[in-house]
Parts: sequence; C-alpha cells; structure tokens
Amino acid sequence: MAGPFISFLTDFGGELAPATCRGVIWSIAEDARILDLNHNVRKFAVRDGAFLLSRAVAYLPIGVHLAVVDPGVGTERRPIAVRVGRGDLLVGPDNGLLMPAAAVLGGVIEARTLTDRTLFLPTVSDTFHGRDLFAPVAAALAKGATYGGTPLPTTAVRHRHWPDDLGAVIYIDGYGNLITGYRAACVPEDTIVRVGHHAPVRAHTFGDVPVGTLMWYENSIGMVEIAVNQGSAAALLRASIGTTIEIG
Amino acid sequence: MAGPFISFLTDFGGELAPATCRGVIWSIAEDARILDLNHNVRKFAVRDGAFLLSRAVAYLPIGVHLAVVDPGVGTERRPIAVRVGRGDLLVGPDNGLLMPAAAVLGGVIEARTLTDRTLFLPTVSDTFHGRDLFAPVAAALAKGATYGGTPLPTTAVRHRHWPDDLGAVIYIDGYGNLITGYRAACVPEDTIVRVGHHAPVRAHTFGDVPVGTLMWYENSIGMVEIAVNQGSAAALLRASIGTTIEIG
Amino acid sequence: MAGPFISFLTDFGGELAPATCRGVIWSIAEDARILDLNHNVRKFAVRDGAFLLSRAVAYLPIGVHLAVVDPGVGTERRPIAVRVGRGDLLVGPDNGLLMPAAAVLGGVIEARTLTDRTLFLPTVSDTFHGRDLFAPVAAALAKGATYGGTPLPTTAVRHRHWPDDLGAVIYIDGYGNLITGYRAACVPEDTIVRVGHHAPVRAHTFGDVPVGTLMWYENSIGMVEIAVNQGSAAALLRASIGTTIEIG
Repeated sequence: MAGPFISFLTDFGGELAPATCRGVIWSIAEDARILDLNHNVRKFAVRDGAFLLSRAVAYLPIGVHLAVVDPGVGTERRPIAVRVGRGDLLVGPDNGLLMPAAAVLGGVIEARTLTDRTLFLPTVSDTFHGRDLFAPVAAALAKGATYGGTPLPTTAVRHRHWPDDLGAVIYIDGYGNLITGYRAACVPEDTIVRVGHHAPVRAHTFGDVPVGTLMWYENSIGMVEIAVNQGSAAALLRASIGTTIEIG
Repeated sequence: MAGPFISFLTDFGGELAPATCRGVIWSIAEDARILDLNHNVRKFAVRDGAFLLSRAVAYLPIGVHLAVVDPGVGTERRPIAVRVGRGDLLVGPDNGLLMPAAAVLGGVIEARTLTDRTLFLPTVSDTFHGRDLFAPVAAALAKGATYGGTPLPTTAVRHRHWPDDLGAVIYIDGYGNLITGYRAACVPEDTIVRVGHHAPVRAHTFGDVPVGTLMWYENSIGMVEIAVNQGSAAALLRASIGTTIEIG
Repeated sequence: MAGPFISFLTDFGGELAPATCRGVIWSIAEDARILDLNHNVRKFAVRDGAFLLSRAVAYLPIGVHLAVVDPGVGTERRPIAVRVGRGDLLVGPDNGLLMPAAAVLGGVIEARTLTDRTLFLPTVSDTFHGRDLFAPVAAALAKGATYGGTPLPTTAVRHRHWPDDLGAVIYIDGYGNLITGYRAACVPEDTIVRVGHHAPVRAHTFGDVPVGTLMWYENSIGMVEIAVNQGSAAALLRASIGTTIEIG
C-alpha cells in the first residue's frame, strides 16, 4: 500500500530549505511519497511558479500539491488550501500561485484559510512559512487530517492575470526553448510566427528540420513553442520573458 | 516489502520535465522506488549519458533503468527495452545510450521494440516521449507487466563507438577531474602520463600529495583519472572532453 | 509501516556520485526513506557542511544522518559514527563535520570508529569512501545492524572552532542573504548592525519594509541575518563568507 502523494514546488533554490521542509513532512506523514517538482522557480516570480505547476499537475497522482512562491511571507496575505474537481488539495499562499493548476484540475470546489494552528509547527517563524506552516499542513492533510480552517468563498481566492493568449514569451526552459502564451489549437498550421525579423518554420518535431533550424510547434502542453533543433532559441533570438511574439 | 526499483537518467536539465516523468511513474507504479541518477547530462550528448549510466549501474539494485538522451525524438529511431544478464531491464531510445550499461550488467539477453501502445499514455506528443512513452513503459515493466513489444535481434540493437582505451579525456566531473579512456589495469604503476607539457605524478589518493598537486590515479571505476588535490585539473590544464592524454 | 530514515549531505555536486550512494543504500536497506539535504556544499568546506547540517537536523525525523565532506579521504582520518541524545546516529569522517549537528541533537552519547569491514562494500576504493564505506555503513545501521566498530572516547572526537558569536558572515544562501554568527537572542532589538558603511534596518519579516530595502532580522534558526527585500544583500554589499559584521 503506497503512502499519500505530495508534490512540492518552490523558489527556495538548491539550498537546504526544500530538504528541511521534506524532513518536516516525513516527521508527520511518515510514508508520504514526496515529489519535488521544481525548487528553482525564479525568486518571487509567482507567475512563473503558477505556470510551471499548472503544466505538471495533470500528470501527477491525485494528492496534495504544496507550492510556495511567497513574496508576501510574514504579511497579512492568507495561507490557503483549495480542493479541486479532480479531488486534489492545493496548499500555498493566496497570491494566485495555485489558481492555474486548480483550473487544470477541474476548478476550485472549496477553499479554506489555514487558521488551525494545531497543524502548524509549535513555533512559526516570520520568514519561513514553508517549513513552519505550509509543509506541516500539507503533511497533515495528506495523512487525512480534517480539511479544517476557515471557509473562504471561492470567489474570494486571489487570481492573477494569467496570460491565456498573450503574444509574448511566458517561459524559457533549460534548453532555451521559448514557451509562448498562444494556445496551438487556436493557431492554424500555416500561420507565420514572427520574433523580430525572424520567422521560425512550422514543424512537428525536432527531427523534421536540420540541426540549427529555428522552428515553431505545438509543445507537449498544447502551446506554441519556439526552438532551435539542438540549439538555444533564447540565445539565437536574444529573447527573454516578455519578448513579443507576433502571429498572422 | 519495498517497491520495485527504477533508476532514471536524462538530459532534461533542472526543469520540470524529470519531475513530470516521476509523476507519471508513480501514477502507474505507486510504490516504485525512483532514483534520479542525473538529469544534467549535456544536452543531446548520447555518449556522455552512456558513460555516466554505465558508471553507476553496478551499484544500483536490480530493477528497471530508464535513460533518455534522445536527439532523435519524433523520428523513426526505435524505442527499446533490453533485458541484461543480471536480470535488469533497460528502457530508452535505440541510439547506443543503453549499451555500455548493458555490457556492465552482463550483456544483452533479449531486446524488444516498444510497440505495445497500451503501455503508453493515451496521447503521445511528438516532442516528449520521456513522459508519454518511456516513463509509462518503464513503470509498467517495473510493476510486472509482460515484457511485450516486438522482438528485436540483439545484433540489431544500435551500438556506438565506445572509447574503451581511447587516449583522451572522456568526461569531466564536478570537481574538474579528468576521466580518461584508459583502463588503469592496463597502465603500469610507473607509466608517465602526459597532458601537453604537464606530467601528473602517480598517486593513490588525494592525501598522498600536497594541496595543489597535479596527480593521476586509478579512479573509483577503474579508469585513469587526472586531478588536482583540492583544485581543478580542467582549469589548470585548460582541458576539455577530447583533450589528448599520452602514456608511455 | 514506513522504512528507516536516512538524511544525506555531501560536497559531491550535481554529478552521479550522490545518486550512486543512494543506490548502494537501497541495495542494503530496501525501504529506507532517503532525504538528500544538500550535495552542493562548497568543495572541501567542512565548516559550511557542518553549519548546514546543524541547521536542518532538528526538523528531520529521528534516524541516521550521513554526511561526507572529506578532504582527508584516503588518509588516516577516522571514519566514525556517533550516537546523540535524541537517539539519532551521525555517520561521516571525524573532521568536525558532525559535531555542530550532534550538539543540536542533545550531544554525543557514544562514539565509534568504523572498523567493521563486514559492513563496507567488498572493495573499498582509495577515493570514494562515500560510496564504499559511509553509505553502506549508514544503510546497515538504519536497517538495525549492531552499532559496532571500535569504541572511541567522546572526548577524542575531533571538533572544529565553531563560530558561535563570530562577528562575520558565516554563510550566504541562494537568495544572497547573509547569515551571521551572532545569535539573535543576544542582540537587543535596537542594536545598530553595520556592514562597512551600510546599516541595515531592523525588521521582522520582508513585508515590513519596501522592496529593495536592506534589513536585518532573526532568521528561522535564531541567528542575525541580513537581506534585501526581493533582492540580494550579497550583491549589494559585495559581501562574502568572512565579511565583518559589527554590532553595537
């Protein structure tokens, strides 16, 4: 019998912090299966974190998804847990981080502010709510604790402007591929995509074009992505997050 | 009772991709023990990936070894699984990546092309076979699925030229140590090793020489390795993969 | 029933080495819950490793803590295991690395030199004791092997000078925050802290000050820490480990 599933995404970096949180989780939910999604989200970049989480969750087991990108730690921003259509619980700060993933998983069914201090560590620091508040609550919920706290109208949960069809680079991955905000299903096959003076060729996979060719294609999450076969589109195009992408 | 063992090596980088694959694996084989070997193999460097995998497998539990360094994703290159002498299964693209590790584990006993689509995710993207094809197959095999697919003559599996006694640097590790292609057992103790104008001294361990000394020794996998005690041989010698190493 | 807990900290870097050690551990203790604390400790920096380990252990389950930052590998330095007040076992080289964590966990109750070769891998290399000696011993102890080896007087275990209230930066984290050696409990609220010409303002959390403000506060382990809200104090102050911090 496998233990409960917890995914974990933060901007804590490669330091000790995510490991300490995993220690807290395993102290409470001993047999949890913890999946580190990414701890190298750009510091304080709530939108990047939201994008990355939403990109992964459909492929994860049903469980608890713990995400902490939290420039407001220590202020009055609410810590929340939301239950979604698929049955998962998402735990994190109420700053919009969880909402795109919630949408992918069937939308928010119920939301709570995390006010039940019996689920926190005995001492809660001002600066490390990941360890002292979010991780122990996620572990307790994974283990089956009552989904307590203070009910929050689902309409009161904070959303962020989410770039659904934004004409810009919204993320750059480790290969230098540019993920755009365009949904590929809305972009006909013969569309000309432009980045400055460059017009990537339409392709379906890297093997379609010679090494070094700039191409665009529907990526593995259904969005228009721009890449260089065995190279870096970000370097070639000197692109960064926010670089304009034109279509038509 | 511990779950089945799956090791996992890719060139996906520190992004979300390896984590998403682990999510897929745990969705299928809930109690799998997943060991991330390395996801920072140089992009598209099949030979590096093959070397690293072969270096580790003897120390791993018997199980499934999933490896994806796959410049040919989306083309006609075969996805394969091979059974080896020790009893492990190796899963990945048929581009030579798996073969050095297979040799370490007793050689290929049986090979199959992965043609059983019932083991894949329902939708297979053109660009992310790691997630959609290799990970779910590895999970199913780890869980005990019949080793199906299409039999492939073991002689038809693609090999790569593998530098068995090549006179060059074949890998540089995180310390800047230079791993050469020479097997130490074939290099007498009093051999002079040369890199350009430099002649590292023969040593057995770092404590044998003063801090800063350039030395060569039999490394932990039986090969000639060149290092600087508490320094970087790569920086000192301006060496890179392929730099010539002379002996005699 | 969850398996035994093993935490693991090294300076091996992002290479294959930590993964190989985990493979060794799972070959011996099949159901171990292995927590990678950090493998990017500065190379050979025993003091950094000691600091990081001591910072995390209080938040981890009771178990075995394996730590290897070992510039003396292959020399006569002792491999040791120590039992501490809380009941944990710490395993690593006798170079002071384990001692601050031992102090946090209730102090050393009993120490042993690891001389029982039946717990090592059959062949012990000169250069990779992490894999061949420390990892298998940690796994065996986690699994319940008798805590054997040669008794060592607790006063014979090597300590290092540990900066308890040192007036300097002792660590810089991934955000560029400066951790100082001052215990916050010993520094009154209205103390002026100085780094060169800069005097960070006293705050309790990031939300207390505008973005870009240099601040000092009690960090999540009770020490004086200097940061820039949503920025890097290390970059702003051009600080490094050892930079003087004045108070008064």
